[in-house]
Formats: sequence, structure tokens, C-alpha cells
Amino acid sequence: MAYTIDQIATALGAMAFGAVDLEIDGVAEPVDATARDLALAMKPEYAESLPRGAARAAMVWDGADWQALGLEAAIVAPRPRYVMSGLTAMMDTGQGWGDGVHPSAVVDPTAELGAGVTVGPLAVICAGAKIGAGTVIGPQSFVGTDAMVGTKGFLREGVRIGARVRIGERFIAQPGAVVGGDGFSYVTPEKSSVEQARQTLGDQGDTTAQSWTRIHSLGAVSIGDDVELGANCTIDRGTIRDTRIGNGTKIDNLVMIGHNVEIGNDCLLCGHVGIAGSTRIGNNVVLAGQTGVSDNIFIGDNVITGGGTIVLSNIPEGRVMLGYPAMKMETTMEVFKGVRRLKRLFDDVAQLKKTVSKPTSND
Amino acid sequence: MAYTIDQIATALGAMAFGAVDLEIDGVAEPVDATARDLALAMKPEYAESLPRGAARAAMVWDGADWQALGLEAAIVAPRPRYVMSGLTAMMDTGQGWGDGVHPSAVVDPTAELGAGVTVGPLAVICAGAKIGAGTVIGPQSFVGTDAMVGTKGFLREGVRIGARVRIGERFIAQPGAVVGGDGFSYVTPEKSSVEQARQTLGDQGDTTAQSWTRIHSLGAVSIGDDVELGANCTIDRGTIRDTRIGNGTKIDNLVMIGHNVEIGNDCLLCGHVGIAGSTRIGNNVVLAGQTGVSDNIFIGDNVITGGGTIVLSNIPEGRVMLGYPAMKMETTMEVFKGVRRLKRLFDDVAQLKKTVSKPTSND
Amino acid sequence: MAYTIDQIATALGAMAFGAVDLEIDGVAEPVDATARDLALAMKPEYAESLPRGAARAAMVWDGADWQALGLEAAIVAPRPRYVMSGLTAMMDTGQGWGDGVHPSAVVDPTAELGAGVTVGPLAVICAGAKIGAGTVIGPQSFVGTDAMVGTKGFLREGVRIGARVRIGERFIAQPGAVVGGDGFSYVTPEKSSVEQARQTLGDQGDTTAQSWTRIHSLGAVSIGDDVELGANCTIDRGTIRDTRIGNGTKIDNLVMIGHNVEIGNDCLLCGHVGIAGSTRIGNNVVLAGQTGVSDNIFIGDNVITGGGTIVLSNIPEGRVMLGYPAMKMETTMEVFKGVRRLKRLFDDVAQLKKTVSKPTSND
Repeated sequence: MAYTIDQIATALGAMAFGAVDLEIDGVAEPVDATARDLALAMKPEYAESLPRGAARAAMVWDGADWQALGLEAAIVAPRPRYVMSGLTAMMDTGQGWGDGVHPSAVVDPTAELGAGVTVGPLAVICAGAKIGAGTVIGPQSFVGTDAMVGTKGFLREGVRIGARVRIGERFIAQPGAVVGGDGFSYVTPEKSSVEQARQTLGDQGDTTAQSWTRIHSLGAVSIGDDVELGANCTIDRGTIRDTRIGNGTKIDNLVMIGHNVEIGNDCLLCGHVGIAGSTRIGNNVVLAGQTGVSDNIFIGDNVITGGGTIVLSNIPEGRVMLGYPAMKMETTMEVFKGVRRLKRLFDDVAQLKKTVSKPTSND
Repeated sequence: MAYTIDQIATALGAMAFGAVDLEIDGVAEPVDATARDLALAMKPEYAESLPRGAARAAMVWDGADWQALGLEAAIVAPRPRYVMSGLTAMMDTGQGWGDGVHPSAVVDPTAELGAGVTVGPLAVICAGAKIGAGTVIGPQSFVGTDAMVGTKGFLREGVRIGARVRIGERFIAQPGAVVGGDGFSYVTPEKSSVEQARQTLGDQGDTTAQSWTRIHSLGAVSIGDDVELGANCTIDRGTIRDTRIGNGTKIDNLVMIGHNVEIGNDCLLCGHVGIAGSTRIGNNVVLAGQTGVSDNIFIGDNVITGGGTIVLSNIPEGRVMLGYPAMKMETTMEVFKGVRRLKRLFDDVAQLKKTVSKPTSND
Repeated sequence: MAYTIDQIATALGAMAFGAVDLEIDGVAEPVDATARDLALAMKPEYAESLPRGAARAAMVWDGADWQALGLEAAIVAPRPRYVMSGLTAMMDTGQGWGDGVHPSAVVDPTAELGAGVTVGPLAVICAGAKIGAGTVIGPQSFVGTDAMVGTKGFLREGVRIGARVRIGERFIAQPGAVVGGDGFSYVTPEKSSVEQARQTLGDQGDTTAQSWTRIHSLGAVSIGDDVELGANCTIDRGTIRDTRIGNGTKIDNLVMIGHNVEIGNDCLLCGHVGIAGSTRIGNNVVLAGQTGVSDNIFIGDNVITGGGTIVLSNIPEGRVMLGYPAMKMETTMEVFKGVRRLKRLFDDVAQLKKTVSKPTSND
């Protein structure tokens, strides 16, 4: 679909300059841009490659001399990164799937589909499931018994929503996301070596090897509004009550959320993050890639972790953390510096010992 | 399904008190409990919220004054965590799927299904596959050519069992679990930079860049009895012989088991654990979340690791390990303490150097 | 299928000895070998167990006295590991699936299938997709709108290829691999706490909590020739241009490749590797299991990392890295040694302080 420069600027609340009725079909990096693309040149270094492409119009930084850049039209946005949100939404051509319920889908007659629901080929919707108006259930996706998905949701191909899971409005799930697998919860008849080692911080004592009996999951998963799930991520059911994800929280690919976990609103959990069972996470928490969080602990509001952080104990609100074990980022940066100089420290101490002992040996 | 307090206590081998013919439909945390739920109040701190719910009966700790808690009936179990196993099994309402072979499933005529096998909608069962009596093959699941799944198994939605995989009795697999992907095994015509760097511990020498040729996987995967697999976990085929998982071993979400790996009986592998190719793991081993284990090494019986442990070499039996690299938990705890005080140590040594050098400069 | 020892040796460019017209159906480890298996005894320690099996022929090391090992025939290869590649390819019996387009598959009439394309049961091929000659689209797999897969590809069961993804020749994907999920890219109206903490290395300042707005992915994924993807791995779409994977690169199970990432040729990315958005990786790079790489950084050609390495900044070409944070492997090995002796160092310094302060107190 084509838009004029003026239409785009108006939609984004940005300012347009030059030939504002120029028509645009897409967006592109400067070097790839055709004459019908809006080039993205929001920094001077990006603008340098404009001549290598064919762009006639670009989104530029505040204060750019767009005419000197050889452009016929320009859009200027005060916070370019934020404008990207509206611009990419306008230009998104979607997945190209048809509407309606595909004849190959298996939809239980007791399932309730709202107005305008799409169900892709070979999807399965089980008994008692409720799908809100306008929601798309992608090809080969699965919605379990008595599960609920709110309105205006979009499930890509092969998403799995387990029995009794409840999901709010505008839910988005990437391919292969799994909600509602059973919790990983087992128990031994007598106290296990793990229980013992946790109490003693490392000593298994004289516990004997035993087999594991499963604790069944009776809870489901409750997910708020505006939540997004990444490809092949997994969110387990709670044991007695539901595992809970708040409103506006975004979860990346291959993230693992254990049973009984509670996550607040507006969190970002990046790729490969793992949250072990019964841990509670506040609002506006950002966990970088491969962050791991132990079971049964608490992470306060507004906590941020860096990549690979291993969280073994509670974190008070507002902290920025890094490392294994997680420490304040500034402490970990000091530690990183320190360990690099450790060899020199050993040398210094060895030298000091020699120096200090020498006078004594002279006695 | 409803049970009386007496029926529940009898089934669990626990003691019942009070109005033991009270009927119960489910279990709940104290605050969420209705009059027909058994509240779980196995610790005094949980019991405090009983008045905020409507429970008439609860499971309480040994010695609890249940009448003072306002209850009409109570169940007391000596090891409450273990009793949870039986209780949740009784109360599990399952996935709500129908019985029999769904007409939309694609079952090869040469596949053998035992008595009472369920095959969900849009599942695929390939030629020569054998499914044991009473096993449920979930919606959209896949069982490959000549694969075998034992009796009383339960495969959730979208599970993938590759060709020639052999699985024992009472197998449980969560959505998206993959058994029998090809091993990640490649070779270069001449010695590769990786082979060289491993031999020299860090020096690539003058090896030149080459392309990788695949080593095909001819083995499959052999899985014992009572094994459970988590959502979206992956277990690769062996190169020549099978990758092997022993009896009673439980594997969590997003765990990766490489080709040729051998895992013993009654192990627990938690979320995001990765075991690289040809590594052997003993019995009753517990690997916490995000533990990584190098290829071609050995982990003895009864080893336990903490979260995020990176295992780069063999671990003798019975050790409790933590850290990167994996060390005995007590050593790692010392190291964690030490690195936090590293800055002070550098300061101390700097001060010592000044102090020690001063008298000399006075000479 | 049966081969003579002579046929196998000829195909592998290896030398055959003894009864070279002996027929072989498969390969096996010495202890498991039947009379119709070629035993793999490429090292003297493997050959020791030949008598426990029934092998009449074996692949042996250069210089082995095969007759003394009780064999009737032998194949000798100069680089046995490389010969494994050809040998396992010859002996691979495949997945046992039928040919042609299965009647239960849902193939859009506008999709173009090349000569000899196989589409398994319950697979979906969307409008405008192009599948090259000889490619196998496995059972329950998905190929999105306008996606392209080259010739001679092999997609196992449940693979997901998103809209507009372009893939080269001889592509192999294991079960559950996902290509073309949306990027994990969000923005807040005002500067977020994360942007602030990154600039200040740990200080969130007075940023206030905000909700996240998604940046849509308009790019797709471009994948070269001879690429292989592991089970349940995920490769996200680019924001404006495609995420790119070069020729000959092999990606293992549960690997996560973020949006806009560029990966060169002939790389190996092992299990659980995560590459965050917009990072560039050169050619012939080998990242061991659980290696994590931050966003927007650069890894040069021929870099190798060890298991669990956390890469937080650029790595120049040719480096062998290990640790958290990633350092040269030799540096990290020194650090590993140093932290183990840290307790002793603290003791030494405490002792030194006492020794040094003593004379002073004597004054």
C-alpha cells in the first residue's frame, strides 16, 4: 500500500518537508532504497550512503540539511527510535494468510469463536475454548480445552496454548511458543539429596538415592493484556494456582518461565532467559539475554540485568545487575577489571613476601 | 470429581480429623479456596490467610491446632511435600481430549496401535511405528518410522518422536519436545582450527579455514521407563549407536541433549541444561537450570550442580558443584566472597608495597 | 542396502585389504557389530572390544595389523574422522517417508513446487512459496507466503519457515526449527531506563517506568547454501533488511539468532548459543555451547569460543576466547587458576599486613 510523505508524517506526528506528496511503498536502509522507498537516515553516518541508493525521500535527524543530502522530501522526528514503531506498523505487510476458518482446521463444536476470528489450516481448537473477536489462530496452532484468548490477538504458526490457559487482549505469539506445559516438580519419599544440599549449602549428608514422583500441575497460566511471546518459548502451568504474566510484558525466543512464577507488568525478558519455579518478578523489569533466575526468590520493580547474569538471591528494586553471581553492575565491572589483573597481584604478593622475609633472614 | 476428606486421607496414607465426610472437588491456596476446596496450609505462615478464603477443610502441618484455625476438617501428612504428589494426581482433571483415533490423524496402515491407544487430531504416525496399550498421542504430534513408544504414555500436543526412537513405559512429553533430531557433528578435510585449539588450549596454529562436512547420524535414541520430557526440549540421535536416557530420568523445558550422550537413572535436568556430544552422566544426578556440560566428559553418580554451572571437565561422584568453571560449591562460595572483596585486596597490596618500599627509600 | 568392502573403500577414497568382496549392511561399534556390519575400530582402544562382537570387517587406523585383530577384511583411512562423513552418508537409511505430495498437506495453488518435491502429511505451503527441485518438506512443516527454499533441501517434521524467507540450496532443518519469527524490538515514548543504564554503565537516573511499543519487523531472513539448522532453534526477521546467514554455516539445537544479525560463511554455532540483535559475525567462527553474544557488536573471522562464554564486546579476528566476560582463553585459564587460590592470597596478604605492621608497633 502506498502513502504520501505527508500522510506518513501526519500519522507519526512528525514534520514533513519538500515534495510531501511523493508516494512511498516501503522503508529501506539508504543503500537498498528504491525511488519508492523512504530511506532511514536518522544519523549522519547512515545518510552518507544515500547516494549509493535511489531514495528520493528519507527520514532524517532533527537539524539535518536534507536538501544537501540530495533528497526531494524528508520527514524529521524528534525521537527517531520511537517513530520507528509507528512507521513499521504502517508498512507491515503481514503474513499473507487468508481470513475465516480454514476447512482443514479441527474446531470443536463447543468452542466459541468471536466475530472475525481467523483459524488457519490444520489448527486445532479444543472443547470449550473461547477466542475473542478479531483474533488470528495461525496455521497448525493449538488452543486447548477451556482455554481463553482475548480479542485482536495474533498467533503465528505452530503456537500451543494448553488447557484452561487465560490470555488477555492483543496477545501476540511467535511460532512454536508453548503456554501451559506441566510444571517441572518432583518429590522423593524421603528427604532428597538436593533438599539436604540446599540446607547445608553443599553437603548431601547421608541421603540415599531415590526415584522421583511427579507433583501434577493443577493450575494453568494467566496472561494479561498486550503480552507478546517469542518463538519456541515455554511458560509452565502452576501447581495449585496459575502461573501469572502481567500486562504489557514481552518475552523473547526460547525463554523458559517455570511453574508458579509471577511476572509483573511491562517487563522485557530477552532470549534464553530462564526463571525457575515460584519466583516473583516485579514491574518494568528488564532481563538481558541468558539471564538465569533461581527458584523461590524475588526481583523488585525496575531491576535491569546484563547479558548472562545468574541471579541466585533476591534483588531489591531499581538495581542494575551483572555477573555470576549477580552483583551491582559497577561492582561486577570492578571484579571484571580485578580478575584480569589477578596474575599481577599474585606476582606482587609473592615479591612482597620475599621482600618482607629478607630482613628477617638477615637476622 | 468429588472426594471426601476421609477418601483423600486414605488414598494418601495420611490422617484425617473432624468432619471427614466433607466433600472436596479441588485443592487451592488458602486465600483462593472455596467451601469445596481442600486448602493447602502445610506451614503456619500459609494458614494465616485461611480466614481470607472460604475453606472448610485443609491439609495442615503435623501438630497444627486445626480447630483453632476455624476448620471443620483437616488432613495431616508427615511429609507434606511428598503427599502433594498423590493429592495432585487425584485432583488432576487432565487435558480434556477425547478417546480413540481422531479421523483427521494420519496413521500409516503398517503402524501398530495397542489396546486403548488415543491419537489426537492431526497427529502423524509413520510406517512401522508401535504404540503401546493405553498411550495417548496428542494433537499434532508425530511418531516417526519404526519408532516405539511403550504403554501408558502421554504425549502432549506437537511432540516429535523421530524414526527408530525407542521409548519405555509411562513416558510423558510436554508440547514441542523433540526426540531424534540429527546430531550436530561435522568434520573438515584437514585438521580444523577447533581441533588444533583444543589440543593447544587456545592456539589455532596455522590451520586454514575450511568448510564443514556433515557426519550423518545412524543411531537413534533409547529412552527407559518413567521418563518425562519438558516443552521444546531436544534429544539428538547418536552417530553410530543410540543416545541413551535411563529409567526415571526427568528432563525440563528447553534442555538440549547432544548425540551419543548417555544419562543414567533417576536424574533431574532442569530448564536450559545443555549436554554436549558423547558425555556420560551417572545415576541420580541433578543439574540445576542453565547448567552446561562439555562434550566427551563424565559426571559421576549423585552429582548436584547449582544454577548456571559450566562443567568443563569430569566430576567425580557425589560432588555438589557451582560456578564457571564448576568447582565444589563451598569453593565457589569462597570465590564469590573473595571477588567481592577484590578491590579491597588490591588496595591492601598497594598500601603494603608503599609501606614496604618506604624504609628502603629511607636508606 | 548392501555394499562390498571394496565398494565402500572406493567411495571413500580409502584402502581395502583382505576379503574385499565381503558384503556390509551397516556400521557399528565393535561390541555391537554383527557379521554384516563394518566395525569402527579407528583407534587401538576401540579395537580391543572387537572379539566381544561378531565383526568380520572393520575400519582400522593406519598401520593396524588387521589380521592379528581377527578380521577377514579391513579399510584403512588416513583421516578416519573425515572418512566418517562419507561412510555415514552411504549408510544413512533416512526417515522412511514416502514421495510426492501427501493428500493431507495444504498446498496453496499459487505455490510453485519444483520437480520431485516431497510434501509430507499435514504440511502447509502458503501462497507464492517456491520450493526447489528435489526438496523434502517434512510432515507438519510450514512454508510461509512468498518464502523460497532452494533445491535438494530436507526439512524434518514440524519446521516453520516464515513469510518471505529466502533459503539457498541443500538446506537441512531439524524438527521444530523456526525461521522468520518477528524481532524482539520495543521502544518507549521517552528514553527508557535501559537506554540510560547502558549509557551510564549502571545508573538508571530518574527515568520513569513506561510501557513498550513494538517495532514491527519488515525484513525477512536470507540464508545461503548448505546451511543446517538444529531442532527448535529460532532465527528472527530483520527490522528493515533481512537477517542474514552465509553459506555453509551450521546452527545447532535451541540456538537463538536475533533480528538483523549477520553471520558469515562456514560458522558452527553450538547448542543454546544466543546472538542478540544487529550483531555481526565473520566467517569460520565457532561458538561453543551456551555462548552468549551481546547486541550490536562484531566478532571477527576465525574466532573460537569455549563453552558458556559471555561476549559483551567486540572480538578481533582469530581469537580463541573463554569466560564471563570473554577473554583470551589463556587469560581465562589463568583467571580460573587464580580464583581457586584466592583464599590463600587473602591469607597471605593478611599475614603480610601483620608482619609489616609489627616492627612499627615495636617502635
